[in-house]
Amino acid sequence: MHSDSSRLPYYSTIPTPQSPIESASMSATQGINVAIIGVGLVGTSVIQQLTTVAGLSSKLHIVALQNSKKTLFSTPTSPLSLAGADWKSLLANSSTSALALPDLVQELQKITRDSGRHTAVVDNTSDEKVAAFYPEFLAAGLSVVTPNKKAFSGPIELYNDILKYKSNDVAGSKGPLVYQESTVGAGLPIISSLTDLIATGDEITKIEGVFSGTLSYIFNEFSTPKGGDKKFSDIVKFAKENGYTEPHPNDDLSGSDVARKLAILSRLVPELKDALPQGYLSVPTHSLTPAPLADVASGEEYVQRLPEFDADYDKLNKEAFDQGSVLRYVGVIDVKKGEIKASLETYPATHPFASSLSGSDNIIAFHTKRYSARPLLVQGSGAGADVTAMGVVADLIKIAERRS
Amino acid sequence: MHSDSSRLPYYSTIPTPQSPIESASMSATQGINVAIIGVGLVGTSVIQQLTTVAGLSSKLHIVALQNSKKTLFSTPTSPLSLAGADWKSLLANSSTSALALPDLVQELQKITRDSGRHTAVVDNTSDEKVAAFYPEFLAAGLSVVTPNKKAFSGPIELYNDILKYKSNDVAGSKGPLVYQESTVGAGLPIISSLTDLIATGDEITKIEGVFSGTLSYIFNEFSTPKGGDKKFSDIVKFAKENGYTEPHPNDDLSGSDVARKLAILSRLVPELKDALPQGYLSVPTHSLTPAPLADVASGEEYVQRLPEFDADYDKLNKEAFDQGSVLRYVGVIDVKKGEIKASLETYPATHPFASSLSGSDNIIAFHTKRYSARPLLVQGSGAGADVTAMGVVADLIKIAERRS
Repeated sequence: MHSDSSRLPYYSTIPTPQSPIESASMSATQGINVAIIGVGLVGTSVIQQLTTVAGLSSKLHIVALQNSKKTLFSTPTSPLSLAGADWKSLLANSSTSALALPDLVQELQKITRDSGRHTAVVDNTSDEKVAAFYPEFLAAGLSVVTPNKKAFSGPIELYNDILKYKSNDVAGSKGPLVYQESTVGAGLPIISSLTDLIATGDEITKIEGVFSGTLSYIFNEFSTPKGGDKKFSDIVKFAKENGYTEPHPNDDLSGSDVARKLAILSRLVPELKDALPQGYLSVPTHSLTPAPLADVASGEEYVQRLPEFDADYDKLNKEAFDQGSVLRYVGVIDVKKGEIKASLETYPATHPFASSLSGSDNIIAFHTKRYSARPLLVQGSGAGADVTAMGVVADLIKIAERRS
Repeated sequence: MHSDSSRLPYYSTIPTPQSPIESASMSATQGINVAIIGVGLVGTSVIQQLTTVAGLSSKLHIVALQNSKKTLFSTPTSPLSLAGADWKSLLANSSTSALALPDLVQELQKITRDSGRHTAVVDNTSDEKVAAFYPEFLAAGLSVVTPNKKAFSGPIELYNDILKYKSNDVAGSKGPLVYQESTVGAGLPIISSLTDLIATGDEITKIEGVFSGTLSYIFNEFSTPKGGDKKFSDIVKFAKENGYTEPHPNDDLSGSDVARKLAILSRLVPELKDALPQGYLSVPTHSLTPAPLADVASGEEYVQRLPEFDADYDKLNKEAFDQGSVLRYVGVIDVKKGEIKASLETYPATHPFASSLSGSDNIIAFHTKRYSARPLLVQGSGAGADVTAMGVVADLIKIAERRS
């Protein structure tokens, strides 16, 4: 993870198809630079959008790619060169080993100076160490965009460090920005809607939603207004076999992903300022995993033993059905009560969470002073590389609009 | 509508509580100036949000108010003075008659220069003449924010003139911006979501929604999954008596408001660039007003005679019910078919437009390449002063973020 930055093949790795004079005069100080950490499914989709969507290449100039093994630098004046290039091979064959993050910051500061453009770092990993480094990126004047939930749902100290540097709300500042739309609901307008509601003075009374695509799918199959004729364990098994769950289903069924999203949203609500969770682990979370399976290390053994507990799930489902309701695994931030929880709840068959939801969609309801009679609802696919990348790229566009 | 601008009580009308030195040093070039045309229900709510919401007064400095009678100028360095002031009296007692728009532009250019801040004009009217002046505002370097549908749904020539000056998508430009979130669905994230989808390269296949709060209410009452036991005419009568309709219900039932919203949205979809409506009047629109009532000039006579046609509405409702469906008045932009229409359609009882909608809510579904299995849905109140003002103020914040 270390390299001698004085020997970096700097500004030379990616071929430059454009005339440097032409490109320098056209775009030298327009738009922003983008440095991408993590080039898996989401990172690949981010690069695909940045290099192929009309109008983006003049605003968002990819200057660096980094995965766990290698780093590749582009030149600030020839971002388009990535478009036609096989960047995966270029990165794999880069002579630069993956830089330690402090070294990466130094290089990006140099690129920022040389290009005369602001630089944003995109973290497409789910790595805690990268998340823990955001304050350093920001202190160096680099903006941060990410779908990585770790920094915003982890220790409150890290979050507060980020807030110290984030200048999103400071009028006239040219400081670093933090955008995190894809940390909740992928490309759905969740964070931006909440931010707009709050910035214009609305009062949030309750945020309630189905935040996990996996748990949305499982309960939309298991518990319907017409009852349920499938075994809970069969649905989980099918979901695992088709990649709808993490390799170990407990990673979804534990509710911790929902707890993380609740920590993220609650930290944006001013009224909760003094009652914030220290981290997602302090969000009261109802695990759907039966206690005897809590320590089963293998995902295969987990799904094999889950049928032992079908009667328990059926009982809950029948109780809900007898009340004319369905089961949904939701996250609730009740601002008035000061209560935050991830739990299995019942909703009447006519409620949008019961009647309107299907597939693996997320649905989020914002109850506010202005939207008091009925909430503002956002619904749609809340997972997947393309829609996650869309949230990232839309955030990058916002930074380019503010800092170029 | 004319005044001698050399004799304007310039920078002197509103009292200045702050020390000019302090305020000049703190905020002279931070944020943007805001000039507000139209101070009715929406305008009042915009001013209320700008003057009372924490953090906004340092970003958004009200420098002018204008209604049909008077104009009032604030000073660029003491925007807070409006907060505690009775601005309605100040405006009513202003010695300046309402300026002709060319004169207003001159004054705002002077304020822009003197303050060193960008200036945005907010048009809270529904006036065609103000809308027709947007190109002049923009040519003078002033940004435009508005809930007024006229400019974006009217003659395509006016719209194209606006596009000539609008620099929202130009990287590095400091030119004027146009934001119009509240022209469709008030504060709901409709325009911003569509803009983000397109900017990140998604392909819109269909936009479909209940765009009229009034028609949403009428059909949510009239046509339910359990059938309908109310007379159409009774619902319209009740709606009119309670202010849910315009004074003449035909203004809602004609569908022209929906046609305007379809013109607005379709003009944002690149794939429709060569097939755009010349104006909302060229959007095929199914009027709900019975032909014999089309020329009834009085709203009272209209509701009095509407019962003559209840049997027709009942027939449609029963046909839908017999198919397990409900009636909804929707707007549809089918990009693939190149078809735009405002019409009465049937939706199965399980469709979100049938099962999830209630009250006078809007619901809008974006079907795209990325959101193909199920659409991105936004639902909530799409009318009312506070939520409309919220859309306007959120737009102003975006301009302040980009131009301060």
